Amino acid sequence: MKSDIITLLTDFGEKDPYVAAMKGVILTIAPHVKIIDITHNISKFNIREGAFILASIINYFPKNTIHVGVVDPGVGSKRKPIIVITKRSILVGPDNGLLMLAAEKEGLLKVLEIKKNQFLLEEVSYTFHGRDIFAPVAAYIAKGVKPEEIGEQVKEYVKLPFPKPEIHENKITGEIIHIDDFGNIITNISRRELQEKSITINSKITLEIGGRREKLELKDSYSKVEIGSPLAIIDSFNLLEIAVNQGNAAKQYNVKIGDKVEIIL
Amino acid sequence: MKSDIITLLTDFGEKDPYVAAMKGVILTIAPHVKIIDITHNISKFNIREGAFILASIINYFPKNTIHVGVVDPGVGSKRKPIIVITKRSILVGPDNGLLMLAAEKEGLLKVLEIKKNQFLLEEVSYTFHGRDIFAPVAAYIAKGVKPEEIGEQVKEYVKLPFPKPEIHENKITGEIIHIDDFGNIITNISRRELQEKSITINSKITLEIGGRREKLELKDSYSKVEIGSPLAIIDSFNLLEIAVNQGNAAKQYNVKIGDKVEIIL
Amino acid sequence: MKSDIITLLTDFGEKDPYVAAMKGVILTIAPHVKIIDITHNISKFNIREGAFILASIINYFPKNTIHVGVVDPGVGSKRKPIIVITKRSILVGPDNGLLMLAAEKEGLLKVLEIKKNQFLLEEVSYTFHGRDIFAPVAAYIAKGVKPEEIGEQVKEYVKLPFPKPEIHENKITGEIIHIDDFGNIITNISRRELQEKSITINSKITLEIGGRREKLELKDSYSKVEIGSPLAIIDSFNLLEIAVNQGNAAKQYNVKIGDKVEIIL
Repeated sequence: MKSDIITLLTDFGEKDPYVAAMKGVILTIAPHVKIIDITHNISKFNIREGAFILASIINYFPKNTIHVGVVDPGVGSKRKPIIVITKRSILVGPDNGLLMLAAEKEGLLKVLEIKKNQFLLEEVSYTFHGRDIFAPVAAYIAKGVKPEEIGEQVKEYVKLPFPKPEIHENKITGEIIHIDDFGNIITNISRRELQEKSITINSKITLEIGGRREKLELKDSYSKVEIGSPLAIIDSFNLLEIAVNQGNAAKQYNVKIGDKVEIIL
Repeated sequence: MKSDIITLLTDFGEKDPYVAAMKGVILTIAPHVKIIDITHNISKFNIREGAFILASIINYFPKNTIHVGVVDPGVGSKRKPIIVITKRSILVGPDNGLLMLAAEKEGLLKVLEIKKNQFLLEEVSYTFHGRDIFAPVAAYIAKGVKPEEIGEQVKEYVKLPFPKPEIHENKITGEIIHIDDFGNIITNISRRELQEKSITINSKITLEIGGRREKLELKDSYSKVEIGSPLAIIDSFNLLEIAVNQGNAAKQYNVKIGDKVEIIL
Repeated sequence: MKSDIITLLTDFGEKDPYVAAMKGVILTIAPHVKIIDITHNISKFNIREGAFILASIINYFPKNTIHVGVVDPGVGSKRKPIIVITKRSILVGPDNGLLMLAAEKEGLLKVLEIKKNQFLLEEVSYTFHGRDIFAPVAAYIAKGVKPEEIGEQVKEYVKLPFPKPEIHENKITGEIIHIDDFGNIITNISRRELQEKSITINSKITLEIGGRREKLELKDSYSKVEIGSPLAIIDSFNLLEIAVNQGNAAKQYNVKIGDKVEIIL
């Protein structure tokens, strides 16, 4: 499988030489590749946030895309460097759960531990596997090297337990899994849970959020309420989102990732 | 018309999955395309700022470039999704004025409302037309689909009134239309208005700015004054700029976008 | 020499039209080129920081890459626009020292002053040589124009004195040359100086940093100390780094670029 696109997702930020070093390594090995930045602004060491972002976008990329993820607080420890093969795509990064939520969405086939030194940079540092291991491995796969020539299948790998919403008779208990740059509050409650409880567009919802009780309507677009007014909405990734039309809901409700959100039925 | 470049300008910021989802959609439909980010840091919902930035750079891009703009507070409302055809380029985005300043600079030919579902993602959300409408439409046009196959011409579309400077006998009244990342203050007073009043390099100018009266010289480069000193300059986009050599003029004068600037003659 | 990659490093930030204007100019002249952003977040006017970042990554890029650097407080003054030819790559930018640290690492061959107007934009502004001089010159070289057709060799050019660590009998005196986005403190003391004083992995080091005396161990990976604990490490660019495992060392020690760091032997 030759591949034309490598995506990068990291917590490296955008002022340091780290992302550019990875791109240089990739283009040295596989000059034909298009490199696409997913984001480099994952909160430092926040594997869960990185996993959520990667899983949100992976299905929008073409078949055979190679996705490199580096949110890697355990770099240099015994955590394994891995290649994950799915039905549509290949993922490369640390074995800490970062890649697996996206991999399952793509149809997980197998996980390989990276083993062969000839596909790594000559000197592998203990602090920057993005440049020394993950970038060259992704580039060699893009060039046509079979993942099986680079690594060996492992049966055990890290899966992050992602919080699932709990459905009770009189409430749905979920949590905030992302706050976007607009301040929109994204929960782990999906369209399915709402449908199960017959909550549809224009339903009135009673929410417990940020320590207070709020009555909101479920709307299908932000502009269905006044500017500055809050609403509930099923977002473009099919998750319940609490938003303020042209405002910042996270500031208004004073909440953060991990906080509980309850729908009182 | 086949096209090789699609540019993206949004207010999405750089930490969320939104920009990457658009890129994935584009590359799935039109793998040959080069995607160039103009910026994703337009102030949230600030259509006017987005329009200014897009108009500033559009003429530097090759003929046949496709420009996608998404600053879209009205997403999901009745505001139309449009394709704008100009003499040099094609623009895709919401009908809220974002695209029209740039389009006029390029030689506006016609505006089409996007109509045909087969050129959109299968499910169009109410909250993310960047991914579901604008990205795929731009990609299909890049691939060679005629805009006329995707949309129908409309005679009415939104034009944002851009503030023009007023020329009086004894003053020119303008306003601040952008403050750049250096803190340079960019006004809507252009080289032409200055020439009309015979203000040339090394002219002394009396300005009303930030509630105070300042005497500055019009210089042709920042380095013509001491480090830390203010100056007036005609910037690289032919607009009057108030700057501080190696300093931050916007902080020094405590001004913001929309504030008035007057030249007293 | 035809070239396929142009990299960009600037202090322009990511909200303004400046970087995009440069990209448009490049793609108009040399549509085949891949443009790679090194970073646009160099601290404003900080030539030294730009030089350090460029020198950190240049050797990871393929041979024949063209690197454009624009941290240019003297734009519009008499500082020369230059092309630097090295054994592996070509650099384009202002003659203020920004390019020379990287050029020396690549094997400096010669420095040319840009002279020929036909390779610049038609109107060259006094404030934006990135767009009007450096971008088009880089693009013409990428297209195959010989640098010698664009400029003339100069024997004198600006070299920034980079602070070297001082090795004394009982101490090594260095300084902080970069603080990365994780808060890791990067010094100008390299692996070589440590080896010279027989400091190796697991050595205990006594440091003077941020006005206090600290005893740290030199570790080979962050994860060798507890989360939240400080350590010394030789970073992936072979420089002594003071870090906190999953924490922010620069905040903890309250230091900034240019501060002194001493190893007491």
